Amino acid sequence: MKLLKQLCSIHAPSGEEFKIKEFVLWWVSTNSHNWKVKPFVLNDSGLQDSVVLVFGKPRTAIFAHIDSTGFTARYNNELVNIGGPNFKNGDKLIFEKQNNIFETKLVFDKKTEKVYCDYKEIISPGTTLTYKVNFKTNEKEIFAPYLDNRLGVWVALNISKNLENGIIVFSCYEEHGGGSAEKIAKIIYEKYSINQALIADITWATEGVFLDKGVVVSLRDKYIPRKFYTDKICNILKNNKIKFQLEVESSGSSDGGYLQKCAQPIDWCFIGVAEENNHSSLEKVNILDVNSMLKTYEILMKEM
Amino acid sequence: MKLLKQLCSIHAPSGEEFKIKEFVLWWVSTNSHNWKVKPFVLNDSGLQDSVVLVFGKPRTAIFAHIDSTGFTARYNNELVNIGGPNFKNGDKLIFEKQNNIFETKLVFDKKTEKVYCDYKEIISPGTTLTYKVNFKTNEKEIFAPYLDNRLGVWVALNISKNLENGIIVFSCYEEHGGGSAEKIAKIIYEKYSINQALIADITWATEGVFLDKGVVVSLRDKYIPRKFYTDKICNILKNNKIKFQLEVESSGSSDGGYLQKCAQPIDWCFIGVAEENNHSSLEKVNILDVNSMLKTYEILMKEM
Amino acid sequence: MKLLKQLCSIHAPSGEEFKIKEFVLWWVSTNSHNWKVKPFVLNDSGLQDSVVLVFGKPRTAIFAHIDSTGFTARYNNELVNIGGPNFKNGDKLIFEKQNNIFETKLVFDKKTEKVYCDYKEIISPGTTLTYKVNFKTNEKEIFAPYLDNRLGVWVALNISKNLENGIIVFSCYEEHGGGSAEKIAKIIYEKYSINQALIADITWATEGVFLDKGVVVSLRDKYIPRKFYTDKICNILKNNKIKFQLEVESSGSSDGGYLQKCAQPIDWCFIGVAEENNHSSLEKVNILDVNSMLKTYEILMKEM
Repeated sequence: MKLLKQLCSIHAPSGEEFKIKEFVLWWVSTNSHNWKVKPFVLNDSGLQDSVVLVFGKPRTAIFAHIDSTGFTARYNNELVNIGGPNFKNGDKLIFEKQNNIFETKLVFDKKTEKVYCDYKEIISPGTTLTYKVNFKTNEKEIFAPYLDNRLGVWVALNISKNLENGIIVFSCYEEHGGGSAEKIAKIIYEKYSINQALIADITWATEGVFLDKGVVVSLRDKYIPRKFYTDKICNILKNNKIKFQLEVESSGSSDGGYLQKCAQPIDWCFIGVAEENNHSSLEKVNILDVNSMLKTYEILMKEM
Repeated sequence: MKLLKQLCSIHAPSGEEFKIKEFVLWWVSTNSHNWKVKPFVLNDSGLQDSVVLVFGKPRTAIFAHIDSTGFTARYNNELVNIGGPNFKNGDKLIFEKQNNIFETKLVFDKKTEKVYCDYKEIISPGTTLTYKVNFKTNEKEIFAPYLDNRLGVWVALNISKNLENGIIVFSCYEEHGGGSAEKIAKIIYEKYSINQALIADITWATEGVFLDKGVVVSLRDKYIPRKFYTDKICNILKNNKIKFQLEVESSGSSDGGYLQKCAQPIDWCFIGVAEENNHSSLEKVNILDVNSMLKTYEILMKEM
Repeated sequence: MKLLKQLCSIHAPSGEEFKIKEFVLWWVSTNSHNWKVKPFVLNDSGLQDSVVLVFGKPRTAIFAHIDSTGFTARYNNELVNIGGPNFKNGDKLIFEKQNNIFETKLVFDKKTEKVYCDYKEIISPGTTLTYKVNFKTNEKEIFAPYLDNRLGVWVALNISKNLENGIIVFSCYEEHGGGSAEKIAKIIYEKYSINQALIADITWATEGVFLDKGVVVSLRDKYIPRKFYTDKICNILKNNKIKFQLEVESSGSSDGGYLQKCAQPIDWCFIGVAEENNHSSLEKVNILDVNSMLKTYEILMKEM
């Protein structure tokens, strides 16, 4: 839990992922001597703020996006969205100025439908804000902002311990229009012939997908992965007696959508946990689901 | 007509094109010994479920998408769209389970604006449904679902008989966000230096484009091809005394739109037949228009 | 001013950029013998109607789009938009037929919300129209249609005189869905390892960005460039005591958005002048802002 709490606490909205990139690189360099296979780390300027770990002879890549939603200060403390934050009046926000952290509150103006913060001074335009992190847990559940997708990152870092063959991608800009998965797709397809991707991310609890019911395999959202590929995944999970939920949505997207549209033939499937209060200051997931996700990825990275 | 009826009857909505891919490959392998030039067939994993035929020394590629619109079963027999089906209450639908075909009916709930099927059991989420095919023809017209774009595929397969130099692309995902033309563009540009594409597809009958008035050359839809290129095509058709209609729309798109946005400099122009009742269970085209389209492609593939 | 007036007067909406391409090529061939460095001109079929000038050992590319908004004639003199023209009833428009220029007026039908022109005959579908250019200037301001982005082109051509190392891109299709910057990105990244771009374009005067207040550096619009990169630019400008305005918007885009989504890791930042009456027949900019933009680009192309 300590690692997950640390990950959730890093200020890294889309466009400003360098801090979580540094954290991931530090974590890998500090811990990978204990891993079954020490990965080769791709981290040159061609990757911008994303990181790629290459283990053994990879056949499949896990994509875990490291950016989060948030806000950009416009003029006179108006805030505009980074991605799609699900905010409410009074949400506590933090921002940085000259290496210090400051706190403020979100104010929603019903009349103009504009969003502001109530900081005593005018924040410099372009400054980014994220929710103040209040990380809570009980025996069954975890509550925190940015579990989407720091939990996906946590799963990826845990999978790394025993991974023998595979690629782990820590991607940027997933929450705000993409532009990172597209660049990484080219690199891992050309260098490592990767044509299988798994999207380690967080989805919505709905009338068909629930907390405490196991990992979620998404058969479609706004985009539709190839049935050939989702069938292959479901068959592996059935053979391994993994209890999983099937998701079917007509909207929403992920790094899978960016892979769908890229020039490289990389199949993709979203596999993650269901969450309540997505993109809010109090996202909620179930711990058994997290363990189910971890187990699922271990099996898939071996058998695919 | 037998081939066209067969093509219309294949269940292959976006994401599930493998059956029509298999049919096209079978057709080519069975018939190409009688063709003027036997094409080289590109069909490796890099193409996913699309197929590319290479004839002689190609200068121009025909794109005919093989996927169709349809529906995905969500939870409790709710249906969500694949592409933009133009459905009505009571439309007969089919789906597959364990290699058997089942029939059901579409139910539109006006209050919730949701779509369901009335099957007696809950269909497994992720199952896809398409219109039950009722193929009818008279001396002048053809009526069937999925003439868009099985008619384009039919034209492409007929063109193949006498094609000496050119590429024919059978692409996927055209109806649902793309992701196939982009991958093929890279391959045919890099391997064969193709920078000319013709989009063999079906368009809407409107106040400016009519059935029974000849092939349609689209000067723009949501996207705008280069005037340099559409001028070149129109001049060839005029010199050959082909009667054609000019289309100008501000919306709608095709594989041409995906080519427009890709990284390869491939000019594109949509050339097809006008249709009534697009994406419905009873699409309608005119047979003289189909012959006009066939003749147009024969000329263009020679003279471009 | 003569060059700017000439540039504004060229009919070149998206898809029909060949005339301004020819003008730029002519200008470069006529003037570059007086420039500090004579650029290598990329102008093959792989670039379609865009032009790329390569000076010395380039590290950074300026993108100036050469296309404009406009209208396409549909049926019966209905007009549909190319890009997002900000028209009003009675706007004077011009179009070409058989190498002659004709004039007509825009008519907005409030009931149908459709746009027409009042030409005495039916204009051939596919014909494009642009505003008739009335170029005016006083001591402080310039008024003309298509300052967006012929002013960016003008700045780029002026920068060329003293540029020692850098790339200047004259791109197409910026106003209408893109498809040009994506192709150029691939070429300049692969051939010249360019991973820094500056977008020389025109932005909106708003409640935070004003005429007569200096060049505008955009920290985001619909898309968000990397903070790492915009920080680098702002620091160079501060060190050089350039007075500049910071822009933060949640909508609007530029060639930067197309670069964001492409497969090549090219950082981008929009740097231009604020304008009133964007995309109208009477765009307005301030001359001091133009000089500020020119100075800014000179500094950045040296120091980045």
